[in-house]
Amino acid sequence: MKKVFVYLFGMVIFNHAFAQQNKSISASMNKVKLEFMLDDQGRPTYSVGYDGKTAIKTSHLGFTLADDSTFYKGFKLLGSDEKQVDETWTPVWGEVNKIRNHYKQITAHLQQTSGMKRSLDIVFRVFEDGVGFRYEFPKQPDLNYFIITNEVTEFALAADDKAFWIPGDYDSNEYKYSTTKISEIDNQKIVAEATDIAVRVAPDRKAVQTPLMLKSPDGMYINIHEAGLINYSAMQLHVDNSTYKLTAALVPDAVGNKAYLHAPDHTPWRTVIVSNKATDILESKLILNLNDPSALENTSWIKPMKFVGVWWEMQIGKSTWSYAKSMDDVDANGKLKPSGIHGANTANVKRYIDFAAKNGIQGVLVEGWNVGWEDWFGNWKENVFDFVTPYPDFDVAEITSYAKSKGVSMIMHNETSGSATNYERQMDTAYRFMNKYGYPSVKTGYVGRIIPRGEHHDGQWMVQHYVRVAQKAAEHHVMLDAHEPMRPTGLQRTYPNWMACEAGRGNEYNAFSTGNPPEHETIMPFTRLMGGPMDYTPGIFKLKGYSTAEPTRQVHTTLAKQLALYVTLYSPLQMAADLLENYEGHMDAFQFIKDVPTDWDDTKILEAEPGDYLTTARKAKGTDNWFIGAITDENSRNTVLPLTFLDKGKKYEATIYADAANSDWKNNPEAYQIKKVTVTSSSKLNLKLAAGGGAAISIKAL
Amino acid sequence: MKKVFVYLFGMVIFNHAFAQQNKSISASMNKVKLEFMLDDQGRPTYSVGYDGKTAIKTSHLGFTLADDSTFYKGFKLLGSDEKQVDETWTPVWGEVNKIRNHYKQITAHLQQTSGMKRSLDIVFRVFEDGVGFRYEFPKQPDLNYFIITNEVTEFALAADDKAFWIPGDYDSNEYKYSTTKISEIDNQKIVAEATDIAVRVAPDRKAVQTPLMLKSPDGMYINIHEAGLINYSAMQLHVDNSTYKLTAALVPDAVGNKAYLHAPDHTPWRTVIVSNKATDILESKLILNLNDPSALENTSWIKPMKFVGVWWEMQIGKSTWSYAKSMDDVDANGKLKPSGIHGANTANVKRYIDFAAKNGIQGVLVEGWNVGWEDWFGNWKENVFDFVTPYPDFDVAEITSYAKSKGVSMIMHNETSGSATNYERQMDTAYRFMNKYGYPSVKTGYVGRIIPRGEHHDGQWMVQHYVRVAQKAAEHHVMLDAHEPMRPTGLQRTYPNWMACEAGRGNEYNAFSTGNPPEHETIMPFTRLMGGPMDYTPGIFKLKGYSTAEPTRQVHTTLAKQLALYVTLYSPLQMAADLLENYEGHMDAFQFIKDVPTDWDDTKILEAEPGDYLTTARKAKGTDNWFIGAITDENSRNTVLPLTFLDKGKKYEATIYADAANSDWKNNPEAYQIKKVTVTSSSKLNLKLAAGGGAAISIKAL
Repeated sequence: MKKVFVYLFGMVIFNHAFAQQNKSISASMNKVKLEFMLDDQGRPTYSVGYDGKTAIKTSHLGFTLADDSTFYKGFKLLGSDEKQVDETWTPVWGEVNKIRNHYKQITAHLQQTSGMKRSLDIVFRVFEDGVGFRYEFPKQPDLNYFIITNEVTEFALAADDKAFWIPGDYDSNEYKYSTTKISEIDNQKIVAEATDIAVRVAPDRKAVQTPLMLKSPDGMYINIHEAGLINYSAMQLHVDNSTYKLTAALVPDAVGNKAYLHAPDHTPWRTVIVSNKATDILESKLILNLNDPSALENTSWIKPMKFVGVWWEMQIGKSTWSYAKSMDDVDANGKLKPSGIHGANTANVKRYIDFAAKNGIQGVLVEGWNVGWEDWFGNWKENVFDFVTPYPDFDVAEITSYAKSKGVSMIMHNETSGSATNYERQMDTAYRFMNKYGYPSVKTGYVGRIIPRGEHHDGQWMVQHYVRVAQKAAEHHVMLDAHEPMRPTGLQRTYPNWMACEAGRGNEYNAFSTGNPPEHETIMPFTRLMGGPMDYTPGIFKLKGYSTAEPTRQVHTTLAKQLALYVTLYSPLQMAADLLENYEGHMDAFQFIKDVPTDWDDTKILEAEPGDYLTTARKAKGTDNWFIGAITDENSRNTVLPLTFLDKGKKYEATIYADAANSDWKNNPEAYQIKKVTVTSSSKLNLKLAAGGGAAISIKAL
Repeated sequence: MKKVFVYLFGMVIFNHAFAQQNKSISASMNKVKLEFMLDDQGRPTYSVGYDGKTAIKTSHLGFTLADDSTFYKGFKLLGSDEKQVDETWTPVWGEVNKIRNHYKQITAHLQQTSGMKRSLDIVFRVFEDGVGFRYEFPKQPDLNYFIITNEVTEFALAADDKAFWIPGDYDSNEYKYSTTKISEIDNQKIVAEATDIAVRVAPDRKAVQTPLMLKSPDGMYINIHEAGLINYSAMQLHVDNSTYKLTAALVPDAVGNKAYLHAPDHTPWRTVIVSNKATDILESKLILNLNDPSALENTSWIKPMKFVGVWWEMQIGKSTWSYAKSMDDVDANGKLKPSGIHGANTANVKRYIDFAAKNGIQGVLVEGWNVGWEDWFGNWKENVFDFVTPYPDFDVAEITSYAKSKGVSMIMHNETSGSATNYERQMDTAYRFMNKYGYPSVKTGYVGRIIPRGEHHDGQWMVQHYVRVAQKAAEHHVMLDAHEPMRPTGLQRTYPNWMACEAGRGNEYNAFSTGNPPEHETIMPFTRLMGGPMDYTPGIFKLKGYSTAEPTRQVHTTLAKQLALYVTLYSPLQMAADLLENYEGHMDAFQFIKDVPTDWDDTKILEAEPGDYLTTARKAKGTDNWFIGAITDENSRNTVLPLTFLDKGKKYEATIYADAANSDWKNNPEAYQIKKVTVTSSSKLNLKLAAGGGAAISIKAL
């Protein structure tokens, strides 16, 4: 962070007397109201109101600990603190260039009245668009190191809301979304049928993952997630189909515990974002604001970028990650015999470098460059890759100097196959290797069951691991794009080199499975992306007939929608994922990918409805140029966009990459039309989105 | 290894026809006879005979696998191989300077007749003093990566043998020995009462640890253990009290599996050493011979040594590992306040360096030098120590240069508190730090529950960890003394820098608990030390009244027995463990510690009975000097030692460090007498060992 503007007018009140008498405290910020109280069993509870309505009914708070199964009741309210903060900070990169952090904070100081008389603080931050709260464990004689066996935090919904959800799986966030009422949530069949997901562990059929997007029958949008997950297990939610109560369900470790803490310590923030407008949910900065400021002092080396790469060709079966057909395909000297279809060969990589250099794409990713891919998956094997030994046809020195000569940044791929212990042993060596060869960025992967065995992708040990990776990468000035980590919780604020994650169902599922339905990308911003940027890998132009294995397979969008995703799905690392030859026939459409930035001064969510449609406008960093992405689900859609966000009196040239009149995701996905019009802030754009379609618009100040 | 003398007259016969017809194969070497056969269910079995008697009755072999619960039956014998080896090799250091490896090997090639028709090889090596066998999993289409859920290897004893045993605990080898019949083995009460052991996990009350020492009613000595444990979990033995059958019980991992293997692969060797003479058991090199030759090419940097150290003073409560009284004892700046009794302070360390230099002791160990000891134990905490940050009163540069000026080698202490993941992250850094400061040796520690949580000290993951530590240490030319690892299995042959282990109940228990009974050291050579050297830390001179916490506490030996242990308990790293001031009053006795070597040309076990007595003579490396240690249990003992092992016609001066006439471990442990006599190979020494006593003799060629 170069500059931080802080306008802080804090106020700390210790209103002890008040609290003890009343057993309840509350705070409001505009339409949001938070109430905290102890019930008659001394159980801490809270509720959230919005605009006179109930967003979260009275809900319990607390824990069971390894040495105390009742750390959720028998409390008295010793007192409370209150303060107000209004500050503005500047992210290193992002959707906007300034973020206002404006909240009222109240802290309930609790103590159990019997037993070890342990104390517990619960801190609430009330924003204009929701509430964040976390538990803080003060240093105290009888609470030092302790083990959380369960968190009993509830989110009691007021009605049988519509929910956009994926199963609460300990190891995967890569499910398709289901849209059902709370009363209908049951993940069992979905988990059983999701055979395209490598590792599935979802023992509770009533559990869902967060971010959970909800819409109440009376039109209130509620989003439940967490912020600042750095030393805890991920929170999933157990659903009560009849009472509509959601209860925190933490991912267990190898022996069934949920978290190991050491007072003074705290949980991540639990977040409830609420509004009558879906667009507000997407514009919320509540989660980012609840994260700590950057832990990195020098961030000048962190550069958002677009990239192409040796990747989709493997996903569709055109080439392979592996060098030989199998481990057993060896010559007389025991050396692997080249299969002839290894993707990460020097000549092929140079082709990508050439394309990137020619088209102003900053980066080239190469997967399958290091030995081990003949035998990497599914064996729960600890020592798979070493991250420094290239295949014989991948000349790392030659590629490095070639890329350098062309001004292209290489992105290294470190697939761990879930063996985190092996990666931790070798991270230092891997990043030193990257530094030596001038790779500024790494894409990590965790495909497979985790080692340490018994741990899960979303448990505390792995949460700490991913953070260690981000920290270690930062030490080496390496930017990080983590695939298959826990889903993001806004940590990109604290570790701005941790630029993107997968942790969701990316475009790749269109390559190797039945894919993502047309509504998928209209739900993701309300769910997965609430926590942070996603390396979704948009930009597929050849939308049918690309799969070697399944010639009938297709992507469930039009080409124009693929372009629109560069705006609607934010990431500071954005891939142009398709084969170069598929771009070369459509360089007029590719122009949008060339032009669209990965870092923004401003963002306006123009219209949105989860599961249906989304239109986003963003202002390119340091310019007066705007970019719009509009997408729809399986239904075609007409919309009129007033361009009131443009500077008044200024003229712009808008280039509209739209579906063709006869476009249709299923039967005619690759048809598109491009037109240019001159616009001003008083212009209105009429957009026709095909079924599964979209529109991408670049608006250049004249 | 500088020189290896190999006399190999191998013979490989593939006697296919023989095997298929007979379903059985056998081999003999002198008195030892091994028979292998398939029973009528196609179950592989073996038996071991000795001198016409049955050592191991017909016993089953095989496994259950995660994907096949019947990998122990339905086999046919495809054929067998046979070869004979007679070679002699030179250890880098050890009890003898040449080791003969003389065995007949037979390999049974088995294949299951149904299902996946998997094959399995069982390899037997028949030595003059016992049998080793292991399972080999050939590369085959239907056995690639596989998980062992149980090994069903049996050792069916022929009678209700007397057993010298400790409980089969997944995390500790530090129990006192029990001597009972097989029919009486039950560890439950012992485990429950062993509150002096930090971590105890022994779910099977009928399980015992190996090496297991047995004596049959008709006087046959049998020792059961394993060799070459590098990629498997430790084998414990489940005891059937009524049939006297012992069955392999492998230590499980966090999810209950026993081992993850990848064909072609193999198990460690299972070892049965057998003789009518107890002394033969101790002279056996069977376990060492079954281990692989040194993996290190250059071993010139590996130097056996004696050492003193800042250690016993903490064990007895005179000083502390920690710098401050507690984590909370901090000054206004949050810095720890010195307690004034921190052992590892520069001045104190220099005192040890001075003593070492003056008395020709090569090394000085310092524990408690690095920050973290205020808060290191019992919290299952992952990040405890960093292994490079000294306390403010430990000036590592000053100590390094002081030690160097005095010609003394410093031994670094790396306590992991069981957090192996943390140590693996930092090993490189720790050893680079040691290299920088010229520390040639490290003592590691694993006191506490293991992290990765759910793993055990003796499970496969940790077995691999200890080996990784040995390998990483070797890369940095660091000698290793591992405390609380899995018990040794002869790996010091393969990793000669891994010089010693604790992995047993050391002298330290006399400091902080009720201690070790007088018989303890007469059992250890037959059990714990069968696998390799032990850092037992002998040499306590002040045998009573040393404990701050328990003034009545005492060591259960006489002083002369403490001296004798330098000979009877072999280690290439031997500590003189007592306080310097306790030596300074007895420098005449300390002379033996100054003189006794840690590396030997030859070793003769003169007399031995487990649990009763042991007399060992060893010839100092590269000299004609001999050293004898004689110890007894709680009973006094008179013995006559013919010195026939001395060179004929040569004269020697024997210095005898003996119990005084009125010595007694309980009431008068510190009384001793020293006398010198001239001896030859025809001399006989009359020794009187007090109750709990011993004698140490140095015999110098004149």
